[in-house]
Amino acid sequence: MSAHQPLHAALIGAGPLGINIYRHALKRPDIIISQVVDIDPSLKGKDMGEHAGLDATGVYISDSLEQGKRADIAILATVSDLPRIGPQLLALIDAGLSVVSTCEELFYPWNSSDEWSKTIDLAAKNKGVAVLGTGVNPGFLMDSLPAMLTGICSQVEKIEVRRYQDAQFRRIPFQKKIGAGLTYDEFERRKNEGTLKHVGLSESMHFLAQQLGWTLEKTEDRIEPVIADRTIQSEAMTIVSGQVAGVRQTGIGWVNGEEKIKLSFQASVGEADSYDEIEIFGTPHIRSRIMKGVHGDIATSAIILNACKSILKAAPGLRTMADIPMITSVGV
Amino acid sequence: MSAHQPLHAALIGAGPLGINIYRHALKRPDIIISQVVDIDPSLKGKDMGEHAGLDATGVYISDSLEQGKRADIAILATVSDLPRIGPQLLALIDAGLSVVSTCEELFYPWNSSDEWSKTIDLAAKNKGVAVLGTGVNPGFLMDSLPAMLTGICSQVEKIEVRRYQDAQFRRIPFQKKIGAGLTYDEFERRKNEGTLKHVGLSESMHFLAQQLGWTLEKTEDRIEPVIADRTIQSEAMTIVSGQVAGVRQTGIGWVNGEEKIKLSFQASVGEADSYDEIEIFGTPHIRSRIMKGVHGDIATSAIILNACKSILKAAPGLRTMADIPMITSVGV
Repeated sequence: MSAHQPLHAALIGAGPLGINIYRHALKRPDIIISQVVDIDPSLKGKDMGEHAGLDATGVYISDSLEQGKRADIAILATVSDLPRIGPQLLALIDAGLSVVSTCEELFYPWNSSDEWSKTIDLAAKNKGVAVLGTGVNPGFLMDSLPAMLTGICSQVEKIEVRRYQDAQFRRIPFQKKIGAGLTYDEFERRKNEGTLKHVGLSESMHFLAQQLGWTLEKTEDRIEPVIADRTIQSEAMTIVSGQVAGVRQTGIGWVNGEEKIKLSFQASVGEADSYDEIEIFGTPHIRSRIMKGVHGDIATSAIILNACKSILKAAPGLRTMADIPMITSVGV
Repeated sequence: MSAHQPLHAALIGAGPLGINIYRHALKRPDIIISQVVDIDPSLKGKDMGEHAGLDATGVYISDSLEQGKRADIAILATVSDLPRIGPQLLALIDAGLSVVSTCEELFYPWNSSDEWSKTIDLAAKNKGVAVLGTGVNPGFLMDSLPAMLTGICSQVEKIEVRRYQDAQFRRIPFQKKIGAGLTYDEFERRKNEGTLKHVGLSESMHFLAQQLGWTLEKTEDRIEPVIADRTIQSEAMTIVSGQVAGVRQTGIGWVNGEEKIKLSFQASVGEADSYDEIEIFGTPHIRSRIMKGVHGDIATSAIILNACKSILKAAPGLRTMADIPMITSVGV
């Protein structure tokens, strides 16, 4: 697929993720989002460009797939969980489309629902299309990239991934999402409501385990506040010592009573440094760090759009990042 | 392929690379080297364990493939260039074996010999087997790993890879190989003889270009001495100021008159730091570093042995690292 023959994609989902993907697609020579579908009645008929805060693009949001418009592939950016995305996926597969999705649980779905996974896999194989859930996390930083790095190890005893982000200069909604400025009690309440949880650590762990031939007997997904030890000033708020500056989420996977996988995600206002680090305790020992970390919003859109051409070359069925042609970018 | 059902591999080539692979395979639960082939008459009948400086293993070096011994795959560790490895590959393919090879030119052979590439691809497809050339460099650090990292970029303007190695504590043959201790004139003579050249920068560049949709109009592969600016003492030698401490090799690839790919490999006795760094000038900008670098000997054996199970799942034909199932290690 060269830049001269752009792919035509149907984008399903015109929420924040879909908007982000749409904006990035407009800048690319290799992909055209030819139609946008969203079931929200208030969006029906709106110009997707304007909905994304840009100039009108002449692509109007529809409540269903439009048969008359070319679509080589579907980009599904709606929900995070398998039971809700399952029927949406089956409809796209039934329409003969391969699918790349942002759905976190779809990245490695066999553990959360073996039944949905088998149903999707079978439907995709019957239609000769491929389905992939991917993204930056889950999808890349804490799973496929560390898995790829193990390729140069003769054996692996343990994998740790550390994603640390200073949220001081990030968008205000991101700072709020990580609980910055809350009291400890408010943090605990939001934690119990489930609104602080990053979805996907468990999927990343099961993917890694499968690559290395481990069977995880137990996984833990722990959420704790990062407490400010001084007054921290961001554009949006002042966090005083003792208040919550952000969140730390830790996923741990055990094999035979041993911690074999440890994924730490920490985002707080005033974090000392931002980076994405992978440490493989193996032969040889590998410690790899992406300096300053990876900007999640840009990278998520990028990998979803980059994945389209790989998925069209993949074998039919429900796929993972480990069994499709490598996802790479476009050189300019 | 689980640890309970080890692969049986035929190893072709009992030189230093083959010995290194054999030693590592003995420590792994997932692979058994069931036979070793080498055309050197002086090796015929020798026990491969003893030849590798270990205890006898009961595997005797043969001058041809032994039909009576199970082989699921062949590991070809003989020569670096396509014209010489081509006939060896065709013989293995003809025997119905998929092949993983250390041959540097085979990593991305279309540019150095399109004819050999097509011949090998066609023969492999006819026999339903897959062929891969891989390793650490070329094969991983300067090509597949940077290509994979571009997957989270919406576009890429330039890629630089810097592999810096302090050779002070490496094996003496390695120090000699990089020219440490030579005078400038001796270095130039060895450079002109071709014995200082690391093979593979050009293959890495063409692979990267292909992944990003670039066509390189020109590549350069430059070799220069690293000159000691002080007296450096290693176990093997004393290098005085003005003598050669090591080698710097730079591969540059151009697109429309612009430097788009720059691969720098520098190994010298007394190098300030060892690391493998990838910098992607794109959106987002990515700088990723493997601290202390990667030990080439261990990692080469590892990726060759790890590749075996991937290649058995790959589509038939001449493959690259970008179109096979991901190569990963074994968890212990």
